Amino acid sequence: MSVNLKELAKKLNLSISTVSRALRDSPEISETTKKIVQKKAQELNYHANPFASNLRNQKSNTIAVIIPAIANNFFSSAISGAESFAQEKGYHVLIYQTHEELVKEVSILKHLQNGRVDGIMISLTRETFDTSHLKDLMNRNIPLVFFDRVAENLQAPKVTTDDFESAYKGTEHLIKNGSKKIAFIGISEVLAININRLAGCLAAMQKYKINIDKSLLITCDEDKIKNKQKIKKLLSKPNRPDAIFACVEEIAIAVYEVCEENKISIPEEMKLISFSNLNTAGILKSSLTSITQPAYEIGREAASELFKLMDKKDFVYVNNHIVLKSTLNIRSSTKSS
Amino acid sequence: MSVNLKELAKKLNLSISTVSRALRDSPEISETTKKIVQKKAQELNYHANPFASNLRNQKSNTIAVIIPAIANNFFSSAISGAESFAQEKGYHVLIYQTHEELVKEVSILKHLQNGRVDGIMISLTRETFDTSHLKDLMNRNIPLVFFDRVAENLQAPKVTTDDFESAYKGTEHLIKNGSKKIAFIGISEVLAININRLAGCLAAMQKYKINIDKSLLITCDEDKIKNKQKIKKLLSKPNRPDAIFACVEEIAIAVYEVCEENKISIPEEMKLISFSNLNTAGILKSSLTSITQPAYEIGREAASELFKLMDKKDFVYVNNHIVLKSTLNIRSSTKSS
Repeated sequence: MSVNLKELAKKLNLSISTVSRALRDSPEISETTKKIVQKKAQELNYHANPFASNLRNQKSNTIAVIIPAIANNFFSSAISGAESFAQEKGYHVLIYQTHEELVKEVSILKHLQNGRVDGIMISLTRETFDTSHLKDLMNRNIPLVFFDRVAENLQAPKVTTDDFESAYKGTEHLIKNGSKKIAFIGISEVLAININRLAGCLAAMQKYKINIDKSLLITCDEDKIKNKQKIKKLLSKPNRPDAIFACVEEIAIAVYEVCEENKISIPEEMKLISFSNLNTAGILKSSLTSITQPAYEIGREAASELFKLMDKKDFVYVNNHIVLKSTLNIRSSTKSS
Repeated sequence: MSVNLKELAKKLNLSISTVSRALRDSPEISETTKKIVQKKAQELNYHANPFASNLRNQKSNTIAVIIPAIANNFFSSAISGAESFAQEKGYHVLIYQTHEELVKEVSILKHLQNGRVDGIMISLTRETFDTSHLKDLMNRNIPLVFFDRVAENLQAPKVTTDDFESAYKGTEHLIKNGSKKIAFIGISEVLAININRLAGCLAAMQKYKINIDKSLLITCDEDKIKNKQKIKKLLSKPNRPDAIFACVEEIAIAVYEVCEENKISIPEEMKLISFSNLNTAGILKSSLTSITQPAYEIGREAASELFKLMDKKDFVYVNNHIVLKSTLNIRSSTKSS
């Protein structure tokens, strides 16, 4: 039992426009009329049609966060950071998952391109080599901010961690603890985070004159079973690595499982370090040395950049790249024997 | 550079209604006209205003999933299950987090009550003792389905696991492996899942004539630091338990951390079992014996129930409770010494 605006106006014997302005607390309407209208609206259980009201003010009070997967401690913390900022602004946050598929990323952006949300934060899939769908969105003047997995070639705000420097420091730590044959396991050949982390790792190896064996630099994909096979193959080589740098935590988990199954002890026979926000890093069989991104702060900062764009009537995209530092948490998995 | 429907109609010298019907592929419009309209629409970069079109057909092609937190392996898998079903129906899924706060749950439901989404799947906060906001939504005839953390008193579809039976079996396993003083650590005194899991645990203790010590039945809340203090206090008692049944995985993680800090070895001095979908359960310092819910299937089944309601023009809420069984994964944390 509820009435629409027209029915409410009829019951009140007032014009739709008067009732509408009274409900929006317009200064043009007298306080007495406002009270009468509001009382009747409550009595008759009137509720605004959100689509109709969006049509008028063209605002959804909503932002979208698009990420590869929510089952990931980095992304879930980043979302909480974005939510905390949006909430202060009275905004809701919608979360969309691409499941690492470029086609889904394209489809979601298409779904959002006509004003369903007021702004978008995105972290790209591992497949995103073509950025035309992102350019398209930017050409429509929809506020867009990248975080973590950014499109480096596009002129838009970006929030990331210091991928190169952190990977350099992590690798330096492995080398100082005695590692001589270091493998790097990545997740993508096109993602900037992967390229930068690998570059940091290689730079440290060069600096400390560690031989770079290209057969130890491998890339995993979405398929967990295939990934474990690839890692198993890597660990069965005659030139088996004595340390692994995992680009993300899901790779580190797979390395633990393969080592367990093949009775390779961490850290005695294999050191392991990973970019990770895993909440169980400290209680793993050999606790995980991790490079921990300030995930919550990255999400919050990206939301802050997004609202800066949204707050301007005519904004211009600028190539603003904000870098928040990660921390190295040394635990058992890299202990020197 | 884009045009709206009115401008497009003007350029084509056709009525708005004709153009609109042509774009919607209406059978009343000739194929020739449709082609002309579609070509011009593409040429002039016409895009439908989603709010205007929602206003017409009153459909958003979107469902909402409301959960306490996404940083939780059960909920992230359940969401993936719901997404897979929704996608087959051409629907998008919006994800909302309540962060275990009843006020947020109320606010989100209020935000959704006017047709922003076509249906809602919800898992309640640990604070949700009052269900009037849910009744309110149901009275507006908005399709609503509960999953995992359900409101048992409301007549709506519910999808859960066999909480009582699984907890009974898990406790039986502890007892058969020698546990005599079993503690239960819950997360809420009002949530049905907590009540049913505790009841299952107590029923097994009664059946096997294990003394029930009420001081070993405690409830944790959202504050991680306080939770660890509570657990530490529990483990410092003179009547210290020899086994812990954790209601959810975040409690199990806290138990691991407290045991680590206080040098209590799992399973030798303390057995541990938990409801959990943790992806690192198998590689924890003492791998975790878990009761694993079919999270993906629960999400998918709840979505299926939701679409059954949404597909009917006039649906009636029925008290349909679907139960999907959990599995007991026996690992090291409950080994008898």
